[in-house]
Amino acid sequence: MTAKRLDELSTAEFGKMVGKDPVVFLPIGAVEEHGAHLPLGTDSLQPEYIVQKVADRLPGPALIAPPLRYGNCVTTRNFPGTISLSFDTLRALVQNILEELCRNGIRRIVIVSGHAGGAHMAALRTAGENVVDKAPDLRLMVLSDYDLAYELRGAEFDPRDGHAGAIETSRVMAIRPGLVKKKGQNSFDRPPKYMLTPHPERYFPTGVMGEAGKASQAKGRRINEYIVKGLTELIKANLS
Amino acid sequence: MTAKRLDELSTAEFGKMVGKDPVVFLPIGAVEEHGAHLPLGTDSLQPEYIVQKVADRLPGPALIAPPLRYGNCVTTRNFPGTISLSFDTLRALVQNILEELCRNGIRRIVIVSGHAGGAHMAALRTAGENVVDKAPDLRLMVLSDYDLAYELRGAEFDPRDGHAGAIETSRVMAIRPGLVKKKGQNSFDRPPKYMLTPHPERYFPTGVMGEAGKASQAKGRRINEYIVKGLTELIKANLS
Amino acid sequence: MTAKRLDELSTAEFGKMVGKDPVVFLPIGAVEEHGAHLPLGTDSLQPEYIVQKVADRLPGPALIAPPLRYGNCVTTRNFPGTISLSFDTLRALVQNILEELCRNGIRRIVIVSGHAGGAHMAALRTAGENVVDKAPDLRLMVLSDYDLAYELRGAEFDPRDGHAGAIETSRVMAIRPGLVKKKGQNSFDRPPKYMLTPHPERYFPTGVMGEAGKASQAKGRRINEYIVKGLTELIKANLS
Amino acid sequence: MTAKRLDELSTAEFGKMVGKDPVVFLPIGAVEEHGAHLPLGTDSLQPEYIVQKVADRLPGPALIAPPLRYGNCVTTRNFPGTISLSFDTLRALVQNILEELCRNGIRRIVIVSGHAGGAHMAALRTAGENVVDKAPDLRLMVLSDYDLAYELRGAEFDPRDGHAGAIETSRVMAIRPGLVKKKGQNSFDRPPKYMLTPHPERYFPTGVMGEAGKASQAKGRRINEYIVKGLTELIKANLS
Amino acid sequence: MTAKRLDELSTAEFGKMVGKDPVVFLPIGAVEEHGAHLPLGTDSLQPEYIVQKVADRLPGPALIAPPLRYGNCVTTRNFPGTISLSFDTLRALVQNILEELCRNGIRRIVIVSGHAGGAHMAALRTAGENVVDKAPDLRLMVLSDYDLAYELRGAEFDPRDGHAGAIETSRVMAIRPGLVKKKGQNSFDRPPKYMLTPHPERYFPTGVMGEAGKASQAKGRRINEYIVKGLTELIKANLS
Amino acid sequence: MTAKRLDELSTAEFGKMVGKDPVVFLPIGAVEEHGAHLPLGTDSLQPEYIVQKVADRLPGPALIAPPLRYGNCVTTRNFPGTISLSFDTLRALVQNILEELCRNGIRRIVIVSGHAGGAHMAALRTAGENVVDKAPDLRLMVLSDYDLAYELRGAEFDPRDGHAGAIETSRVMAIRPGLVKKKGQNSFDRPPKYMLTPHPERYFPTGVMGEAGKASQAKGRRINEYIVKGLTELIKANLS
Repeated sequence: MTAKRLDELSTAEFGKMVGKDPVVFLPIGAVEEHGAHLPLGTDSLQPEYIVQKVADRLPGPALIAPPLRYGNCVTTRNFPGTISLSFDTLRALVQNILEELCRNGIRRIVIVSGHAGGAHMAALRTAGENVVDKAPDLRLMVLSDYDLAYELRGAEFDPRDGHAGAIETSRVMAIRPGLVKKKGQNSFDRPPKYMLTPHPERYFPTGVMGEAGKASQAKGRRINEYIVKGLTELIKANLS
Repeated sequence: MTAKRLDELSTAEFGKMVGKDPVVFLPIGAVEEHGAHLPLGTDSLQPEYIVQKVADRLPGPALIAPPLRYGNCVTTRNFPGTISLSFDTLRALVQNILEELCRNGIRRIVIVSGHAGGAHMAALRTAGENVVDKAPDLRLMVLSDYDLAYELRGAEFDPRDGHAGAIETSRVMAIRPGLVKKKGQNSFDRPPKYMLTPHPERYFPTGVMGEAGKASQAKGRRINEYIVKGLTELIKANLS
Repeated sequence: MTAKRLDELSTAEFGKMVGKDPVVFLPIGAVEEHGAHLPLGTDSLQPEYIVQKVADRLPGPALIAPPLRYGNCVTTRNFPGTISLSFDTLRALVQNILEELCRNGIRRIVIVSGHAGGAHMAALRTAGENVVDKAPDLRLMVLSDYDLAYELRGAEFDPRDGHAGAIETSRVMAIRPGLVKKKGQNSFDRPPKYMLTPHPERYFPTGVMGEAGKASQAKGRRINEYIVKGLTELIKANLS
Repeated sequence: MTAKRLDELSTAEFGKMVGKDPVVFLPIGAVEEHGAHLPLGTDSLQPEYIVQKVADRLPGPALIAPPLRYGNCVTTRNFPGTISLSFDTLRALVQNILEELCRNGIRRIVIVSGHAGGAHMAALRTAGENVVDKAPDLRLMVLSDYDLAYELRGAEFDPRDGHAGAIETSRVMAIRPGLVKKKGQNSFDRPPKYMLTPHPERYFPTGVMGEAGKASQAKGRRINEYIVKGLTELIKANLS
Repeated sequence: MTAKRLDELSTAEFGKMVGKDPVVFLPIGAVEEHGAHLPLGTDSLQPEYIVQKVADRLPGPALIAPPLRYGNCVTTRNFPGTISLSFDTLRALVQNILEELCRNGIRRIVIVSGHAGGAHMAALRTAGENVVDKAPDLRLMVLSDYDLAYELRGAEFDPRDGHAGAIETSRVMAIRPGLVKKKGQNSFDRPPKYMLTPHPERYFPTGVMGEAGKASQAKGRRINEYIVKGLTELIKANLS
Repeated sequence: MTAKRLDELSTAEFGKMVGKDPVVFLPIGAVEEHGAHLPLGTDSLQPEYIVQKVADRLPGPALIAPPLRYGNCVTTRNFPGTISLSFDTLRALVQNILEELCRNGIRRIVIVSGHAGGAHMAALRTAGENVVDKAPDLRLMVLSDYDLAYELRGAEFDPRDGHAGAIETSRVMAIRPGLVKKKGQNSFDRPPKYMLTPHPERYFPTGVMGEAGKASQAKGRRINEYIVKGLTELIKANLS
């Protein structure tokens, strides 16, 4: 079934949909530095693409809630163009939306985040835990599409491939090629492990953690399909 | 100049743009009941449309930040499909984004909200006041496109025309005609003045406050042009 | 009936009153610049006067809760003597008092604010919404006496008459003539519309928005009577 | 000098007064059960009376800020008519007012609370500490008039005399005799020491902790004079 | 019975203990300056010692929860080594632990704090009040071991003996003699009464308020036994 | 050098130590179900042990701050005996302590947590980020001893070994053998990936995620030594 955008429905249409127990997708992105080659909205366009594809493949009804295109960014926070929500702002925002969806009778929700930072994901999960504890019949899945994409590391891609690297660059080449500005750089530099520092950007001036130069559109298509397939199966297994 | 979407820039492109002192637009919408004829996202699509048109007409550089498509809704909160952020969530979100834009060197910002509820606008303004007090060289404009649209009430439109009424319906007919589901209803019913009630929706079961039935695409085009022109002038007068 | 001051009752007298389902009035003021001619407490003395008169005219039992004489002031915040509560402080204070009145069994409450700033009123209303949602049998009215007073603009008074202007000055001349220090000034200057600025006071150095020079005690008596009558009718219509 | 009420000044008069470095008094009360014989506002009328007398006796300029007539009440919270602000609300309110007075250039402040509960006083002191740490030239005194009144226990009054007892009843008889409803009761019952309980009122159903029956107007006059004198000396010693 | 440390039990052992309705002790200390002769952890080691002794003497089952060794310190906050939790942090921490103990089925709790500052104790009590209001069958005692120790002032010890004075020094000499660094000083200097000041330490540079020089181990043993006996009786009287 | 316990120093001794720029260790644990065989305090005793050993091996001065023995537990929260701090409580507590250490002049801090849950670690890191952003000369390391211990998975231990499994059980056998109650169970059951559920415990009723039955004291000694060595090197590399 072709998934509908939640906010293109009228109030009555939405009310009717609730009666069919739809899966509601909430795609979450970020405005974050992604090397010299990728746009700031890289983490938004990926989950919005994935969510549309997955929703279309589900056998039952699905709705796509308006996307959140701001997230919490730590390591990249000082690069120009990164707009980071605090942990508290992000958690409050997501928890508020989840509560409102619940209040409206929604009982199946999937949050897909294109950004996968530790605090960012913890904010989403903490928001979710707070809601499921009060709505025990809610089935709520929270993940990053990179939880699936990084399953491909080690074989085809370097085990250290990460932020704005080969996998991410390939995916954007497949989704919005016009936004890829140039060939990406290769770099595995990172801030020292376990150290919290006011200037993490100094440890990886390229803004890349991986082999962006090895990206290709064909790889991106394969990765995206891998994620779409994997997420579709996860939803069928856990939310049916 | 054709305005760019902020998150389609790379970090370096954004950094370069900051040097040109661009006007950054932040469009804010809502997910809110809008009668039987308009979509829940009515308040999002209007300011996103307006902001693009205005930004294109400005003589200098402009950027459009990713839109917020959730707002604070009071009177309509119990209709199916309304997803309301609390005052605190909305204020924190907007203040956080403004602070991050300031931290990035942005000095001219225009917030345009399609939703014009009292608490919603107070949240936006309180967020803004908190930021300007700490960034005195920031020039910040906060308004609803309805601050301008409602200047047309009294002459062509009923002085009481409001939520999902003739003006709003006409505008959506001009911007996204495919999302107008049917002919709108006419109603001026409202909750009693000054009373705070847990069930305001009972006082206007149509969800309409105005003469939606008198809407037309041509009227919508005229209204939108009136807003675009008015806002462009306001920005030239106050942010140049 | 002559209305009683809530805190002049003993615990037992209060308990007995609750059984009669009294209307409880909560007058709210401010400490705020009001031109060279009016005292900082202008916004406190007006609603305290009105509330006493209205309560006395009601057919049933009424109580007047201790007044709040601090409010949230934005535009005037930098004039000497303005003491502004933040939005959060004001909302918490009012919500706390409303919750306690409810816990005590009070079911009819009228908040009358002499200050009518946008954020100030939004704080009162947000506090009130939070309470009615949890106490659905509470009947709660929230307004400024200026919601009624400004109905007189356009005819006898300039449509732009506002802060410390003809209407307000007249009212204080009628209520506490000894506190009117001199003849008021006339000025319609204001900060530019929609702009949030760290120094709004620079745009209206007189601190007056209206024709204070046209005020008179006789006008003030008429305005006050208009408000008392209007509010009495509103309460009879909505809280009986 | 006769002390002025802060909010009876105009903005210009206030600005002029600031230049003379006035002592600003902030009287704080409560709405709280006080036995069958005293009014709910007992804790408000006492410090307002004291503050006026002390301010009048000071050699230099003094202002009396609008009183707060709501406080935090723990042990009496379940008696009819007690309206208790939470610790957080009270602290935020007092801190906000102190910050605003500081912002206005005030450098000498005396808070006198008629209510002397442990959490209530801790809220006032915590608010004060937060402010003095950021305004090191502020001289801030925070006390209850009962800090002085209870110095008289042990000799003329029972060492256990407390809430609504002989001292308090006498004081109200001297300040507002018309509000004393009947002869007070004698009782020294209290909740068990160190136990926190949801129903402390069950342990002292009279709502009195002391020998209210031994109160007299003459005693009240003496006590009040003792407080006025003591506080005047404290201020001369510490704030000159 | 020998009291067990709560966190030395396994989940199953704990579950079994809950069925026996144990008294749970929560000892709370501080990291705070205590003169030149006592360690920063003085306020931690005392209640941990007391609690173990009392728990061992109770006829029924008891558990000792992991101690909190950080508290809220006001007057000593600027001496080297004082690590003060804010009022809010301390209250949140204690309230959170109490709520979790309740959720686990614990119904008898005794909090013993070695630090006895006004705001510190108010934080503990406010946390406790918040919990008992929602768990009315909880029996909760909150006190400082100094509530009992100071009953000995006036006779054997100076009525003004306090922080790091004769009583406290004696107690540490009895509990951990190896941590007493030298003979303590005698001083009764204090910050001026009722004044809140950014530098209270300037008024008592020794960091001592009492006659530390008169301390002895034998006195400490007697004081500690007095406290242990007194607290055991209080618990038997109120929590059986 | 033998590391000292911070709160066993006097204020003067501490002040002197600050001048030597010591590394301060803050060990953080939890009260959390750990199978039928391990105590609730398992996550506390491990980092306290590690920190003592590492501090003793450092060439320069080191202090051990009083341990926090409560953490944030999500998956195990419903097992008897788990006492979980909320994300906010834990973050506030850790941030408060870090700020106070900074205020005291400490410039090198290592947080070692025995609990390694995602939200728990995010709380510690978010607290840390907030502090380093305001104290740029602070060198702050935040990690779990399991960040190092789990480097041993894959070879000697099952790659899925986790909570209360072979590694953890072995370590406790080496540190506090008397607290190991019985032979541990083997189980790799877990809640379904990415699903947030109100009852995660139903998916692993043993409370074990790993092969606890394969634990031994000898293995524990080796693991602990591996961690001590690794952490010592990390500190030498990053904090010297």
